[in-house]
Amino acid sequence: MAYLKNKFFTVFLQKISVLDILQYQQVFLDYLGSKKWVREPKNLYEPIDYILQLGGKRMRPILTLMAADIFSSDYKKALPAALAVEVFHNFTLIHDDIMDEAPLRRGKKTVHEKWNLNTGILSGDAMLILAYQFFESYEPEIFQELAKLFSKTALEVCDGQQLDVDFETRNNVTIDEYIEMIRLKTSVLVAAALKMGAIVSKTDAKNADLIYDFGLNLGLAFQLQDDYLDTFGDPETFGKQIAGDIIENKKTYLYIQALKLADKRDQQKLQFFYNQKLEDNSIKITEVTRIFELYDIPILIKAEIESFTDKAFETLQEMNIPQSDKENLRNFGLWLMNRTV
Amino acid sequence: MAYLKNKFFTVFLQKISVLDILQYQQVFLDYLGSKKWVREPKNLYEPIDYILQLGGKRMRPILTLMAADIFSSDYKKALPAALAVEVFHNFTLIHDDIMDEAPLRRGKKTVHEKWNLNTGILSGDAMLILAYQFFESYEPEIFQELAKLFSKTALEVCDGQQLDVDFETRNNVTIDEYIEMIRLKTSVLVAAALKMGAIVSKTDAKNADLIYDFGLNLGLAFQLQDDYLDTFGDPETFGKQIAGDIIENKKTYLYIQALKLADKRDQQKLQFFYNQKLEDNSIKITEVTRIFELYDIPILIKAEIESFTDKAFETLQEMNIPQSDKENLRNFGLWLMNRTV
Repeated sequence: MAYLKNKFFTVFLQKISVLDILQYQQVFLDYLGSKKWVREPKNLYEPIDYILQLGGKRMRPILTLMAADIFSSDYKKALPAALAVEVFHNFTLIHDDIMDEAPLRRGKKTVHEKWNLNTGILSGDAMLILAYQFFESYEPEIFQELAKLFSKTALEVCDGQQLDVDFETRNNVTIDEYIEMIRLKTSVLVAAALKMGAIVSKTDAKNADLIYDFGLNLGLAFQLQDDYLDTFGDPETFGKQIAGDIIENKKTYLYIQALKLADKRDQQKLQFFYNQKLEDNSIKITEVTRIFELYDIPILIKAEIESFTDKAFETLQEMNIPQSDKENLRNFGLWLMNRTV
Repeated sequence: MAYLKNKFFTVFLQKISVLDILQYQQVFLDYLGSKKWVREPKNLYEPIDYILQLGGKRMRPILTLMAADIFSSDYKKALPAALAVEVFHNFTLIHDDIMDEAPLRRGKKTVHEKWNLNTGILSGDAMLILAYQFFESYEPEIFQELAKLFSKTALEVCDGQQLDVDFETRNNVTIDEYIEMIRLKTSVLVAAALKMGAIVSKTDAKNADLIYDFGLNLGLAFQLQDDYLDTFGDPETFGKQIAGDIIENKKTYLYIQALKLADKRDQQKLQFFYNQKLEDNSIKITEVTRIFELYDIPILIKAEIESFTDKAFETLQEMNIPQSDKENLRNFGLWLMNRTV
């Protein structure tokens, strides 16, 4: 009975939480839509408008608003910071798409494909600067704290992107190095998005640091789950092409761990397949997946995901906020990891 | 006699001023050299170290130090701001060189040539962020003022670069549009470099705005002089290939003004030549230069340069600083326009 009640309570709260998330999302989208992005010179600002309208879950700005809601009475004052985070994230998408030579983003042409390389570079640069400008509405102390965190985070994202590029041509990447790379490339921004909401709310430094750690660990869990789902996800709900990482020879957690644990023959097989760019990938996908499963990689990665998720939830315990807010953050984490609204 | 005395006085001050400039330059170079640029991941930071060591006059950071020296007793506290300006300037060089497909910069390989496109993009991005970080040592109010001016300026530089790109495929660019483009692309950074020195020195807003205007007009004069010297300069002292703009079909002030004033036949001739990329440019250079001279374009551009220089010097009169400092700024302007140390 206690179990049932507890379960009911969780489901109930989860619904509340999902409603909150949808509300943050809508408030953010309204704010985004209220800004006039296109101005002269049009060739510089139209691509910015284009990428910002391409959609997406707006997970990062939602995090900023959610944290602000937990630590203050008016989460809407975090909207400029939330926008800065989203604009920065989209800047990284434009420049990353150039580096990855990606033709499509969310089913539409990438900026450098729709316009050209130079436009992609320059519009991206402008977005990075615009992101800083959104902090200007805050008073000097808050402005400085936000801008400092933002610069630190942005530089870490560059470091992570560089490591990702470096790993492409290295055959001896360790799991620790891989975790460090995804920490820099994706998790620090999730963590910073939350901490910005805390900074705007002027909560104490301990809470701000704890919510950063919560985001960092949840971000790591999220990225590892992305690695897992890319190969083992449900094609119906994953949203991207299944086994895209295998086709692209991306050395994710699955590959690095498998290469470490496999016997000589399977190691060679993995390395052989990851040196091929094929027209028909069916055999490659089947074989690589079989090796992953043979060495229990899906089980290992799930354990890692759970471990990082647990670590995230543990930081909540130390936080000086009402229990109901902790539950909301936990539910957000669960929502994020289930990846459905 | 009064004339002679005055001339002697000017020459004397010019010498003092040149010594000051060399001192600012040396102090800045020492500061630049004291920073450890290369860290992990090396592939991201080595190109940053490389471009920053390529040399150059360091004109912009010198301006920041000079303004700080005029408005305060300790110009060295402006060093971090001066470094931010120089790092930003070098970021624009890396990304501009990609866009221009330039193989060389100061006689050495450009970053995207020495490494590759992706390194050029990512190292440039990191430099833009690093520039912001150098402001972090200032107290919150000064930090915010510097970062605001910096963001506004950086975005204007992007606007200017975009206009420059847009002008390449337009045949109806007016002189006013051209002046606006060079104002954004080059002059605002000269102006901001000076104003940052004023901000760090906590001088009043009027002085800060006046030194900005001084820089803006001097920057315009400087860029127009660059256009002039590119075609009519002394090959011994100009430092770049003479007539490079003609060879590259760059629509500078000379071309736009000539196209406006020339008769039908010479207009067609100009447009014909500016649609050619040739192996042997000797006839093209001779003919285009002849048309420029025929329509008195060298005289017209010299008048413009003088007009902007005068405007710059006029703003000095309104400034609330000792006469000797005004003379120093004036002498700096004269030094800059003569382009010799």
